[in-house]
Amino acid sequence: MLMHEKIADFREKAVKMLNNSGIVLTEIEKNRIEICDYNLGMPNEIGTQILTYVNTSRCCAKELILFPHQICPEHIHPAIGAYPGKEETFRCRWGEVYLYVPGTPVQKPLAKVPENSKKYFTVWHEIFLHPGEQYTLREQTLHWFQAGTGGAVISEFSTQSFDNEDIFTDPSIKRIGSF
Amino acid sequence: MLMHEKIADFREKAVKMLNNSGIVLTEIEKNRIEICDYNLGMPNEIGTQILTYVNTSRCCAKELILFPHQICPEHIHPAIGAYPGKEETFRCRWGEVYLYVPGTPVQKPLAKVPENSKKYFTVWHEIFLHPGEQYTLREQTLHWFQAGTGGAVISEFSTQSFDNEDIFTDPSIKRIGSF
Repeated sequence: MLMHEKIADFREKAVKMLNNSGIVLTEIEKNRIEICDYNLGMPNEIGTQILTYVNTSRCCAKELILFPHQICPEHIHPAIGAYPGKEETFRCRWGEVYLYVPGTPVQKPLAKVPENSKKYFTVWHEIFLHPGEQYTLREQTLHWFQAGTGGAVISEFSTQSFDNEDIFTDPSIKRIGSF
Repeated sequence: MLMHEKIADFREKAVKMLNNSGIVLTEIEKNRIEICDYNLGMPNEIGTQILTYVNTSRCCAKELILFPHQICPEHIHPAIGAYPGKEETFRCRWGEVYLYVPGTPVQKPLAKVPENSKKYFTVWHEIFLHPGEQYTLREQTLHWFQAGTGGAVISEFSTQSFDNEDIFTDPSIKRIGSF
């Protein structure tokens, strides 16, 4: 019961943030926003709200909604057979996003990660995305990101998504295991 | 000189519509909105304002801005070698869109096309998109669309775009020939 209430609560908050950023959803879409806690049980710290608009064998588009300081944890989209792995562009629509990829580590990162999870965040090259700014990740680029103080709304434009196949640095994470 | 003024004027109007729909652009993006009149010289009737966010060999995302009653004329995205043709999803973000594809023709279409261009509009199966509604076109689907009274902002999620290769029903159209 608590689970259902929490999902409803998180969905409501996500819809409010989308409304604030001018993004309109149908009623059906509002009710299928995925509330993902990566099976870690600390959704306010590590979690993502996701609305998939389209995901065909050829392309995919989503909105990602992050609450203030919420983290999408470090992962990679692997090659699957002939599929070379997911390419994705993150476009910040609202709020602020701290995105981390391989490269020169930043000295004073804007992101803050939970102390007991620090070892599962290994790439620290920082890209700061404000509204209207975007970044394209080629396939098989390890990455993670965190929203700023006000949260963030991010449009994702990509090749096909195979969420179940994502490989997370933290081995206890299960992508399908939303609370 | 007139041309430059007209492009600046159309860009300014497009940016205003994006602002109204909550979509934020960088200054660089505002200045590279494509003003396309399809070489027909009647941009208020047949024309499209286009901002391409990303167009790689694997995927593409754009915003399409249509002024009130403006038409994106009938065309198809052909196969090119091993590429089967563009797949695209149109998501109405703001305003109203009348989209036409092959299928049972509607009896009383919402769209109005210029009298002397009517013969170049051959598919009349109507899909009415309101904000938050979307439609996915498989490759090689003939299509065209018109904005409603207030204009429209449409997000396009697709496979790679090869705009120069588009085939228009009206043979006088040149995709690269923006005014």
